[in-house]
Amino acid sequence: MSIHKLFYPKGVVVAGSASPGKLGQVLLERLLKAGFPSVFALNPKAIGWGAAPGFVSARQIEAPLDLAVIVSPASTVADVLADCGEAGVRAAIIISSGFGEAGNAEGERQLQEVAARYGISYTGPNCAGLINTGNNLLASLEAAPPPGATSLISQSGAVGGVMMDLAEARGLGLAKFVSYGNGSGVGELDLLAYLANDPETKVIAMYLENIKQGREFLALLRQVTAKKPVVVVKSGRTGSGQRATLSHTGALAGSDQVYDAALAQAGAIRVAGIEDMIDLCQAFSSLSPMKSKKLAIITNSGGPAVLTADRADELGLEVGEPSPACREELASFLPSHAGLANPIDLTVEGDAAAYKQALLACLQENGAAVALYVGTPYLPALPIAQAIAEAAAESGKPVATILQVGADIKEAQKYLLQANLPLFLSGERAVQALAYLARYQESRPAAAEPLPQKGKIGPGALLEPEAMELLKLNGMPTPPFTLAKSLEEAIAAGAGLTYPLAAKVVSPEILHKSGQGGVILNTKDEAQLTEAFRNLIQLPGALGVLLYPMLKGDFELILGLSRDRQFGPVVACGLGGIYTEILRDVALRIAPVSQEEAETMLRQLRAYPILSGARGKQPVDLQALARLISNFSQLPFLYPDLQEADINPLFVSGDEFMAVDARIIGMAI
Amino acid sequence: MSIHKLFYPKGVVVAGSASPGKLGQVLLERLLKAGFPSVFALNPKAIGWGAAPGFVSARQIEAPLDLAVIVSPASTVADVLADCGEAGVRAAIIISSGFGEAGNAEGERQLQEVAARYGISYTGPNCAGLINTGNNLLASLEAAPPPGATSLISQSGAVGGVMMDLAEARGLGLAKFVSYGNGSGVGELDLLAYLANDPETKVIAMYLENIKQGREFLALLRQVTAKKPVVVVKSGRTGSGQRATLSHTGALAGSDQVYDAALAQAGAIRVAGIEDMIDLCQAFSSLSPMKSKKLAIITNSGGPAVLTADRADELGLEVGEPSPACREELASFLPSHAGLANPIDLTVEGDAAAYKQALLACLQENGAAVALYVGTPYLPALPIAQAIAEAAAESGKPVATILQVGADIKEAQKYLLQANLPLFLSGERAVQALAYLARYQESRPAAAEPLPQKGKIGPGALLEPEAMELLKLNGMPTPPFTLAKSLEEAIAAGAGLTYPLAAKVVSPEILHKSGQGGVILNTKDEAQLTEAFRNLIQLPGALGVLLYPMLKGDFELILGLSRDRQFGPVVACGLGGIYTEILRDVALRIAPVSQEEAETMLRQLRAYPILSGARGKQPVDLQALARLISNFSQLPFLYPDLQEADINPLFVSGDEFMAVDARIIGMAI
Repeated sequence: MSIHKLFYPKGVVVAGSASPGKLGQVLLERLLKAGFPSVFALNPKAIGWGAAPGFVSARQIEAPLDLAVIVSPASTVADVLADCGEAGVRAAIIISSGFGEAGNAEGERQLQEVAARYGISYTGPNCAGLINTGNNLLASLEAAPPPGATSLISQSGAVGGVMMDLAEARGLGLAKFVSYGNGSGVGELDLLAYLANDPETKVIAMYLENIKQGREFLALLRQVTAKKPVVVVKSGRTGSGQRATLSHTGALAGSDQVYDAALAQAGAIRVAGIEDMIDLCQAFSSLSPMKSKKLAIITNSGGPAVLTADRADELGLEVGEPSPACREELASFLPSHAGLANPIDLTVEGDAAAYKQALLACLQENGAAVALYVGTPYLPALPIAQAIAEAAAESGKPVATILQVGADIKEAQKYLLQANLPLFLSGERAVQALAYLARYQESRPAAAEPLPQKGKIGPGALLEPEAMELLKLNGMPTPPFTLAKSLEEAIAAGAGLTYPLAAKVVSPEILHKSGQGGVILNTKDEAQLTEAFRNLIQLPGALGVLLYPMLKGDFELILGLSRDRQFGPVVACGLGGIYTEILRDVALRIAPVSQEEAETMLRQLRAYPILSGARGKQPVDLQALARLISNFSQLPFLYPDLQEADINPLFVSGDEFMAVDARIIGMAI
Repeated sequence: MSIHKLFYPKGVVVAGSASPGKLGQVLLERLLKAGFPSVFALNPKAIGWGAAPGFVSARQIEAPLDLAVIVSPASTVADVLADCGEAGVRAAIIISSGFGEAGNAEGERQLQEVAARYGISYTGPNCAGLINTGNNLLASLEAAPPPGATSLISQSGAVGGVMMDLAEARGLGLAKFVSYGNGSGVGELDLLAYLANDPETKVIAMYLENIKQGREFLALLRQVTAKKPVVVVKSGRTGSGQRATLSHTGALAGSDQVYDAALAQAGAIRVAGIEDMIDLCQAFSSLSPMKSKKLAIITNSGGPAVLTADRADELGLEVGEPSPACREELASFLPSHAGLANPIDLTVEGDAAAYKQALLACLQENGAAVALYVGTPYLPALPIAQAIAEAAAESGKPVATILQVGADIKEAQKYLLQANLPLFLSGERAVQALAYLARYQESRPAAAEPLPQKGKIGPGALLEPEAMELLKLNGMPTPPFTLAKSLEEAIAAGAGLTYPLAAKVVSPEILHKSGQGGVILNTKDEAQLTEAFRNLIQLPGALGVLLYPMLKGDFELILGLSRDRQFGPVVACGLGGIYTEILRDVALRIAPVSQEEAETMLRQLRAYPILSGARGKQPVDLQALARLISNFSQLPFLYPDLQEADINPLFVSGDEFMAVDARIIGMAI
């Protein structure tokens, strides 16, 4: 498997100018300094550097050679790759730019051809290289992070560089770093799959600008997140961001709301930026699981602890009062003016012993603790850091630490990082990381398995009776209806149904029936029905008139299906009227959804309390409604050419549902 | 004025043990090292330190003496203060703890007494001291920040310390720092007033846990923010945070939503934490005003720029395409694969000249720019920092810079800070600061002036007819109504009004009329009215029956008035029903509000589009409705014993309003 050779090559050849200060030379120097044992240089003048001898062709190199790191000009890369392929190289890191991102699609196609010819796996072009701290493979121009348990996949080299820089500054160790740039070789899927099985990688962090194979990516991601946490920064969230993504990688970003839903459904943790990403990687790579949302905050100063408690509360962690027993224990060793309500304020007198004892006491009844120390001139910081580390080890529970202020604070911070305890810049950041840690323990609904194909929609919109038949066939409740093609049929139907009736024109030429006079409600008797029929049947393209009893429900829901460019079928639901139109109170998921997932969609609506009976109406049977939504979400799989569908409205009263209007559109050929 | 002496003393005496390592000694050392010229020590053994001679009593000191910095044990502080008072000291910084915060209220009262006797202004006790970088007054145990234009007022000493530490790390200079701890001497009001007039202070940053004189504070704050920006971190936002505030300063925090409204109305900028506060102080202290929301992002790497554009968009800044002329200019000097849509991507080839030229071109048509540089091995960073500084100076517009990654980046960062340009840790943070900078330029509605007293409510709830009369008297539209005390009066009234009528019991014993069968709607004729009257008049305590025509409107609004512990009268409005109950879609302000402010309340509702005609109803006359809300917000000033009031519902249709039910409660005696 040649991706493995990207990370674990026997020998590495660096292709590109090795003259002093040139990228090739810088790479050779970094690889050798990091301690990678077998490095060679490749350039037209056969210039070497240090212990790395220079060659004109890779075929001249007799040592085993797996990986080429290429920084030569774009126009030369295909030839260099072919030369390396001939020499047995099966993996390449193409840092050189000037390909797809600069309009040179042909150049990029050539790379793919050469790579295919020799069975080479490559990252790039236009990437920032690759690092494996475990074997000193520093094949990147970016920072040199310390070893650790987090691996980073970055589409953008610069963002990768920024993250590594920040990781270094914050003491977060990395196992592997890889950037894939234009991604015409290996992409996010291959790399994610590889790191999922990498024993050195405990946490995966990804920076994504777009995803090319949405469904495959999600299916894989779901498997990976069951094994290890995946933290994602996905850019292009908004209008101007999307424009920038488009111009700098040549790929169109999908709708951000869909990405949000997709990543959450797959169990990944999406954060807004690199700082949050670092915080989370620290928490996940060095803290044990947080099995309860109860949090203790131990501090020697009130103010920062209040800000911390505020944020914890906002994020749904529980900063509750200590139990009487715990309180009593705390009181036994703390001064009388210490704060014994959580946050536990040890006061400026809080020394190492107080921190340790208070942490141990509180961790017995909490899922995690924040230890917050603001340096005082009264006490040295190092013993406090040691005490916190001891308490964390003895309790076996997550302790997030903040050490701030004072001349001796750096030493204490360093100690803690070496003890593999995460340090946060503020209490607010610490609790944010803990909140994600706690959430990661929550069970996720199982993925819904799409059902096998059942039929075809055909191009264009179904007529309403056809759409209603299709819903009925697939287990969705529809009212009894009749398609009347003549006045006689209409009157006969009127006799069979119960007045008052609703009458709607059926015409392929009329898409928005109610706006075009195609709907007449509340016909109370034969006379009114006759008049309604006569009006409707003369509308353009009218094939008949659809009749069904007037219905209503406690609520009107809207269900929708559409296709996202990246992720395919997407299902949405919301209450009708102002809820969806004005308040944009809509829940969205990648389809299909299981009944359980559909239930979480309903619960996520701001208007959810209304459905559950808050306004004096009969509470809706949520499970039955969720089952209906789950069925609806299967339609694009049962009918693979389904382009778009909606039920608007779905009347809902207690456990009774009725799809009163439906629109189903098949793909154009 | 003795507060001035806190910051500009002629001589300083440090009271407390001056033995090596003790707080007194540390303070003496810090003051002398910082270069403060006239420092004395005061302690029972008359121990001095360095150039500061020691004394047993301040009266022995012959040099002019204005300020005492006290770190002696709590039990000695009152005597020390009196001794200093005798010696002519008129300002004191009481760092010692063990007073109100530790349950020693009596000790704190004694301090106040002594201070009053000698006319001493003091900060503390239980505070972290005071710093004036302008005269080397380093009377604090916290970090020693570089000089600058930001002044910080912190209730908590620890938070002040954390902020100064972060300021130092980020290169933000401070003019003054003062923490006031328990605040029994000078408090947030005095300090804010002082710094408002301090010529060295360009930006004021405050950390608040609670505000004692809410109204006075707001009135002052409003004046200050018209002159200089005030950035506030207010803790105790949530349940557990409020508990912590309570235990560590002994003061109850007000409702956070009220604080939010109050600070915004006064023009202050509230941020969530210290990191944001530092960012904003950097922006406000060294950038010129941002007069348009149009933002250019100049970068040498796509990824971080996309994240930046995302965030800018979210915050309402406009990251728009460059004009054709600007685009042409950019194309004239940039390589063909550069990104010319905003963000402008100079690519890795972006050198100093490219940064400068691109910034100057874009700043001609934008309100500000973000210059984002991710270090590359191709180019040195310092010339790029210089080019950015030159472009910022030449354009005269705000430029927020991010310099990241690379061995030579620290030097470039340092250069930029010395050029007084703010450096941000990420593009996201930079645009957040710029968004606040832009918002600060927006005009704020004028404060509403409360009207003079008109009458009294009296204790308890007004009867509904009384409440309706009071609304009518104050310019709020009420329906024609009659209070019928007998059946004859009811029938006569029915003849005068137009059927159908609504009938409500009037009884001091029935507070929730509709829940207790006290409301009968839709009586269509004399017979129905008779029956309704007979039912209602026999309810407990019934004094009569209120009759008025059945009314309805396109919308139902709810207006409310209540009293906040810190800020007094507060006014709220929202649409009735699910909007306020389920969606909590309510706008809130400190009363009274001007018509203009009331209009912003309405616009702030999520349901605002409905009022403005989004659902096919007649659009509401917003100005007239805002005038009504403004009138309503005056009630607690016209009737100073008004405790609580609401109009629920206020029917609204176009420009017609009708208060159909009112509840007005006077203060209990």
